[in-house]
Amino acid sequence: MLKKNVNISELAARLGLSKGSVSRILNDPQAPFAPETRRRVMAMAAELEYRPNAIARALATGQTGSVAFWLRDLSTTYNAHVAQAFETQIEAAGYHLFIRLYGGGGEDDGKPFPQMTPENADGIVTHGAPPRGWTSMAQSASRPAPLVLTGAIMDPEAIDWVGIDFYGVSRAAVEHLLAPGRKRVALLTPHNMRDDRRVAYMDVMAEAGLPPEVIEAGGESRSDVRRSLAEYIDAHGYPEAMFCHNDDAAIAACRVLRDLGLQTPGDVALVGCDGIEDIEYLTTPLSTIVLPIDEMCALAWRYLKRRMQEPDAPPQRITLQPALALRASSGVS
Amino acid sequence: MLKKNVNISELAARLGLSKGSVSRILNDPQAPFAPETRRRVMAMAAELEYRPNAIARALATGQTGSVAFWLRDLSTTYNAHVAQAFETQIEAAGYHLFIRLYGGGGEDDGKPFPQMTPENADGIVTHGAPPRGWTSMAQSASRPAPLVLTGAIMDPEAIDWVGIDFYGVSRAAVEHLLAPGRKRVALLTPHNMRDDRRVAYMDVMAEAGLPPEVIEAGGESRSDVRRSLAEYIDAHGYPEAMFCHNDDAAIAACRVLRDLGLQTPGDVALVGCDGIEDIEYLTTPLSTIVLPIDEMCALAWRYLKRRMQEPDAPPQRITLQPALALRASSGVS
Repeated sequence: MLKKNVNISELAARLGLSKGSVSRILNDPQAPFAPETRRRVMAMAAELEYRPNAIARALATGQTGSVAFWLRDLSTTYNAHVAQAFETQIEAAGYHLFIRLYGGGGEDDGKPFPQMTPENADGIVTHGAPPRGWTSMAQSASRPAPLVLTGAIMDPEAIDWVGIDFYGVSRAAVEHLLAPGRKRVALLTPHNMRDDRRVAYMDVMAEAGLPPEVIEAGGESRSDVRRSLAEYIDAHGYPEAMFCHNDDAAIAACRVLRDLGLQTPGDVALVGCDGIEDIEYLTTPLSTIVLPIDEMCALAWRYLKRRMQEPDAPPQRITLQPALALRASSGVS
Repeated sequence: MLKKNVNISELAARLGLSKGSVSRILNDPQAPFAPETRRRVMAMAAELEYRPNAIARALATGQTGSVAFWLRDLSTTYNAHVAQAFETQIEAAGYHLFIRLYGGGGEDDGKPFPQMTPENADGIVTHGAPPRGWTSMAQSASRPAPLVLTGAIMDPEAIDWVGIDFYGVSRAAVEHLLAPGRKRVALLTPHNMRDDRRVAYMDVMAEAGLPPEVIEAGGESRSDVRRSLAEYIDAHGYPEAMFCHNDDAAIAACRVLRDLGLQTPGDVALVGCDGIEDIEYLTTPLSTIVLPIDEMCALAWRYLKRRMQEPDAPPQRITLQPALALRASSGVS
């Protein structure tokens, strides 16, 4: 049979003390009790292997020792890597991490956003959540919780964030694809993503006097992108190059092109985004935007810790710059 | 500024009722109150957008509406897929999922196992946890929590499980690699994994009168396997075939072999395990053991729901059989 834990009531009864006294001694090293009483309580707790109930401890101390990390899903390799990198930070600090998925698609998909409740955690970090996500989260708390946003650059009032600036590096990627005189450079994106990768693409194409060509997949998984891109090329022919919203989309594109007997970069040049490990296993090395995942996660945790300790600390914000790594898929060897 | 939620005390004050009455009306549809009183409370709660504090509700009702899913890490694609598949089950049922990582390496790595506390969730599903994980988890609860184990087949007393039988299919994989008359068939495995994949490999090699050759990588990530395998081949030459503990290891092996100018399957035949989506993006289609991830997650959730509703229900156990999918990497086209 499973072993049953002793609770505060049982400890108190054995010690001949009130539940309130036992609870205060266990939870507050500063509580004014005689050293002998404190010693008896701790010895009995150790002997009976008392482990506090997390809910009761949260109510008693206001602290859970846990942090919640919200991200959309685990269907892209990038998201799984970000969650793992944040776990590494949190675990080293002795905290517990709850990974939560808010699901849904792009900013405009119309799905209701889940309540991001912080009640089981001392603080929250979100990755890539759209503004209506932060609002929902901030308002669903019975008190405003320490909260740090990560992902594409943003500028909400009164919330800490670690942003990634996609604009400049995305401009450089599209200009790189246009440089050999290509005219038909497309954007390959899952859903109707509207972040700075798309803005930069539209700006560069407009400045070059070229019509934009946006290929929107029906979902974010590799198989979604693969299906949508194959249908698109069947209907519209293939562009000379594609700037891909993420590496998963670029990996799906490699497969579609190979199945059609097309060469990369000879027929279609590619640049991805994220810098996930998977691209090291492709036959043609993929040019990509390498995101500073570890730095982003380390800073998010540093900001969150400070916010948990000093709720009134001044706003903490930083913008990180990714790097453009050029390889064979866009003609650089 | 962030909006502050109204709490039970404020609701009670506005209604001229006791906190206890308001709490019981909000949490228990059967509580004996006059219909008019109930109506007033619900109307005021709606008007003030009252949302219950999860901790308070958990204490009042004993239910959190949440389920915890524990797995080792998110550093393999397979694990991320399993977590995503379980989230899909849970979300469809209107529950919240907490994904927790227990970390650590193989069964024998000597690291302490984290306490898997169920206090914030109504039930727990674990994936791939070693026996000392279940024990720790079951004992750390202030009451035994509904718990379902998933992963390699196991047979613990008094715990529900959905097991995958690796033995038969692993035998078939090794026999397939030996069939063309190969003598040097190795097992490529991260850490010192000791599950039925290894047992089946050792049995088949012994029955064939051939010496086993186990290549143990220093970690589970693709880069760990890649480094260890390259060093191994440098020191010992390459085997004629490798049965790989998982697809991530097989993908790493493809890269190492390509870098050495070796052909798959001509020089080294490969069979992986998991059936992850990534293998569709390799140049040479990978033979692999396809695990029934969706079926495993659906059954785990069905068992957990029943256990949450009927703590004294009889044991629930099932063994699922994976399928061997043979492709070009082991000479089947």
